[in-house]
Amino acid sequence: MEHKEWMRPEDIERRSMEIIEQEMPAGNWTLGERAVVKRCIHTSADFDYASNLYFSPGAVERAIEILRTGAGIVTDTNMAAAGINKKVLGRLGGTIHCFMAAEDVAEEATRRGITRAVVSMERAAKLNGPVIFAIGNAPTALLRLDEMIRAGELVPSLVIAVPVGFVNVEESKERICTAGVPCIIARGRKGGSNIAAAICNALLYQTG
Amino acid sequence: MEHKEWMRPEDIERRSMEIIEQEMPAGNWTLGERAVVKRCIHTSADFDYASNLYFSPGAVERAIEILRTGAGIVTDTNMAAAGINKKVLGRLGGTIHCFMAAEDVAEEATRRGITRAVVSMERAAKLNGPVIFAIGNAPTALLRLDEMIRAGELVPSLVIAVPVGFVNVEESKERICTAGVPCIIARGRKGGSNIAAAICNALLYQTG
Repeated sequence: MEHKEWMRPEDIERRSMEIIEQEMPAGNWTLGERAVVKRCIHTSADFDYASNLYFSPGAVERAIEILRTGAGIVTDTNMAAAGINKKVLGRLGGTIHCFMAAEDVAEEATRRGITRAVVSMERAAKLNGPVIFAIGNAPTALLRLDEMIRAGELVPSLVIAVPVGFVNVEESKERICTAGVPCIIARGRKGGSNIAAAICNALLYQTG
Repeated sequence: MEHKEWMRPEDIERRSMEIIEQEMPAGNWTLGERAVVKRCIHTSADFDYASNLYFSPGAVERAIEILRTGAGIVTDTNMAAAGINKKVLGRLGGTIHCFMAAEDVAEEATRRGITRAVVSMERAAKLNGPVIFAIGNAPTALLRLDEMIRAGELVPSLVIAVPVGFVNVEESKERICTAGVPCIIARGRKGGSNIAAAICNALLYQTG
């Protein structure tokens, strides 16, 4: 097959990161933050992530530390959960939790007239141990997290606030910015489950 | 909760599509193609998808027809599989196939010194009935599909060729363009598993 001569996947990733490095601005990120920015660009080919990502001071470095101790990750879509490297997370002792598809979550959401994302965050708030929230889809998930954080009911190790969208999304992300917890935010409209997973993976790959 | 006053998810989607419609160019897409473009922008907030998507003539309309008859969808990542609306696909009688995580696929790939994506496409080529290939990640998957198509070993109903990336990706997508099968392609570097899933969903939502 002709394409046997093409690069191997490992080499492709290395070369891709070199290209991204060449084309992205110098920025004033820490090394850890820079790795997150690069992986977001790698997963989207969208250099806007070199300008729209906000990191609360020390958030990346603390998240890497906490992942090393086996922190769990909560997502608001099965798609983000599918994109996170479970081999690396599992090796560290961590687990992914996504409550969105649970039948009783749907029932509770219908009964209370709220979104499944809100119910999912309430379930996640009851998990034991340190937890990173990776939210790439639902603004209501962020709003509920923000409420619980401000009420002192939840102290997340990190909130990755990167829903994509055109309505309610920017406001929901900006709220997390001022909630007083470590956060990584994609300001503006952009983001998504792929970006949430990419950020988690960028953190996981720095635990080694 | 204050955010009870925020829009419901259904309303958010409707309003988002209106905003996208306002901001995107008029274009000369068919109605079906336009729905695909809009959903790609909806999932990424990236209006580049208004200029980089190529549709072979009639591909969207034929894909909608074939999905109505219960066509299957093959993906090259579990993430894309997770993002496709399985409720709608299942109602039509279709199934999603992703062979990437199968243990024997990994073994065969190692033994033959090729990627798991190539082995996965070979397995998928043996599926019965009409199949849509939704490739959002691996250029080698597209290259193998291209080889099998040109060798007359495979006649896919549609190839969605939207890997994201910086190395080998553009070439792999351009090859599918001239393979003589119905295709939807994200030209250039952009794409991804989220885009592959969004395109499948845009097709599925037009079967009703």
